[in-house]
Amino acid sequence: MFLDTLAEYRALVLQRMREHIPSRGRYAETLYQPMLDYPMREGKCFRPALCLALCQACGGTLEDAFETATALEMFHNAFLVHDDIADCSHSRRGQPTLHAQHGIALATNVGDALNMLALGTLLANTGHLGLERALTVIEEISRMARESTEGQSIELDWVAGRKAPAGARDYLLMTYKKTTWYTCIAPMRLGALIADAPPDRLGAFIPFGFRIGAAFQIQDDVLNLVGDEALYGKETNGDLEEGKRTLMIIHAMAHADPSTRARLEAIYAKPRVEKTVEDIGFVVEAIGRAGSIDYARQIAQRLTASARRAWDERFGWIPPSPHRRFIDEMIDYMITRPL
Amino acid sequence: MFLDTLAEYRALVLQRMREHIPSRGRYAETLYQPMLDYPMREGKCFRPALCLALCQACGGTLEDAFETATALEMFHNAFLVHDDIADCSHSRRGQPTLHAQHGIALATNVGDALNMLALGTLLANTGHLGLERALTVIEEISRMARESTEGQSIELDWVAGRKAPAGARDYLLMTYKKTTWYTCIAPMRLGALIADAPPDRLGAFIPFGFRIGAAFQIQDDVLNLVGDEALYGKETNGDLEEGKRTLMIIHAMAHADPSTRARLEAIYAKPRVEKTVEDIGFVVEAIGRAGSIDYARQIAQRLTASARRAWDERFGWIPPSPHRRFIDEMIDYMITRPL
Repeated sequence: MFLDTLAEYRALVLQRMREHIPSRGRYAETLYQPMLDYPMREGKCFRPALCLALCQACGGTLEDAFETATALEMFHNAFLVHDDIADCSHSRRGQPTLHAQHGIALATNVGDALNMLALGTLLANTGHLGLERALTVIEEISRMARESTEGQSIELDWVAGRKAPAGARDYLLMTYKKTTWYTCIAPMRLGALIADAPPDRLGAFIPFGFRIGAAFQIQDDVLNLVGDEALYGKETNGDLEEGKRTLMIIHAMAHADPSTRARLEAIYAKPRVEKTVEDIGFVVEAIGRAGSIDYARQIAQRLTASARRAWDERFGWIPPSPHRRFIDEMIDYMITRPL
Repeated sequence: MFLDTLAEYRALVLQRMREHIPSRGRYAETLYQPMLDYPMREGKCFRPALCLALCQACGGTLEDAFETATALEMFHNAFLVHDDIADCSHSRRGQPTLHAQHGIALATNVGDALNMLALGTLLANTGHLGLERALTVIEEISRMARESTEGQSIELDWVAGRKAPAGARDYLLMTYKKTTWYTCIAPMRLGALIADAPPDRLGAFIPFGFRIGAAFQIQDDVLNLVGDEALYGKETNGDLEEGKRTLMIIHAMAHADPSTRARLEAIYAKPRVEKTVEDIGFVVEAIGRAGSIDYARQIAQRLTASARRAWDERFGWIPPSPHRRFIDEMIDYMITRPL
């Protein structure tokens, strides 16, 4: 039932996206078709689904939030395309990354075009929502984009070795900005504000969305270590090769003996191409020895429990409905993905 | 006098940009300071100046167009940062490109952040211009961005060897979209629409801005071949190394004997790093033998003459003023830059 609704939302959003992106004509082959590449791969469309469900749960219609939900999926895919370039990732959703297929030049432009077309999509809101709400949506997107680029800059500092996270707190701040704003906080706030929810209700979505989004991201990091690549779609251990500072590696470093820690630091200081199979094996072992996967799962569970309490206590103003129930199930699904 | 005004506009726009971009705090070093890097190098700020002058020439105030002009300069610099990545360029305005200094990951994020902060800047228009005009400005920017990314995709096809331009017409279409929209057409249309010029007057800025912008770009391409790197700021012959299809190389190929043409095609099919000094020398000679630089200059002069006629004949509704005179001089300056 939940998965059916999620799939329906996805089909609607991708259909709308296709309407915004021409599939023929002079620019189709090297611009518009590559823009549709990632969206058409196996993705869940969590972000638009959250936005659509929240809007309806708060009394709005599906149509009210439709352009915004579509734009969120475009921004998300733009972010993935550029993030894959930044991380030198090889695969995404089970296939080669866009820049691996077409080169960095084309992929950079495709990401820019997705961002800009998403903005165009938001402009279609004026007819339905009126000028003022259409602009409020763009303001929220602008805030979201600012959080994402700041979060990205924290992580790039770590990967480049310019700085290192001191502990779980730093990891959670990075994730709050890089992931949870555009994955949970903004989609939910947008759904609510499009439905004309009272502005003083919007603040509570920030700690709530942070908890769901961070649990989701930690789960994603765990899957990258223990998941099956065929199901998960990214390279297993890809995060280790890229030098990502996940909660697990931060924990493992903090709990390793001095010589292990020194070797871990040395491995993380190497560029991706210089990391050997032995290096990766050493990191995996250190993470195992420190119990860092269990530690990360515990943090995710604590965030989840706290998010569930907040949903019950602070969002009672959203009346019971199939849409509210969908969000309930969505929270469960996002943080306990069966991969 | 003209140069003084241009410098004043530049100082104002850069000051406003600094106000929008925090120079301290956690994200300053790897996000906000690099965002200011290109803008603070020696640039002319043509695009904001065109917008500010047009707005005032049409009866608006400097303040009316100020946020928009600042956003245009941010979009321009975002475009340069990503374009330098796409072209593997080494230098920009006399210094190393951003990705050469900080890596592709950071530069990709800085370009994205500039685009998104430019959008935020446009949102500040609502107070001054009201909701409707603020949204019309964003619509114009959205159109501009679409033209730029389409133009970029044409050029990337050529550089990657997926397609080749058939003649001057193809070159001019690429330039129309990639350069002239965001350099001339949109800045002027924005200035005029912010000043509440009648909407039916805006169409004429498209052929007019195209002619100025294309003459400007051809001049830029010529300077890349014959200019002094110290003055010009980019690598001399950088376009040749990057495999850019300029009007000169298109002309030289069309007028070369079959064996020369075959070798030129072979050189253009090579990736940048495989091109030898002899290759570049061969291209320079072929361009010289075919008289392609004179040919390009003639095309630029024809475009300029036609732009001047259009300015006199189709823009008589803009009354004489120091601002109109500034635009007059700007046209001359952009296409006869003394470098």
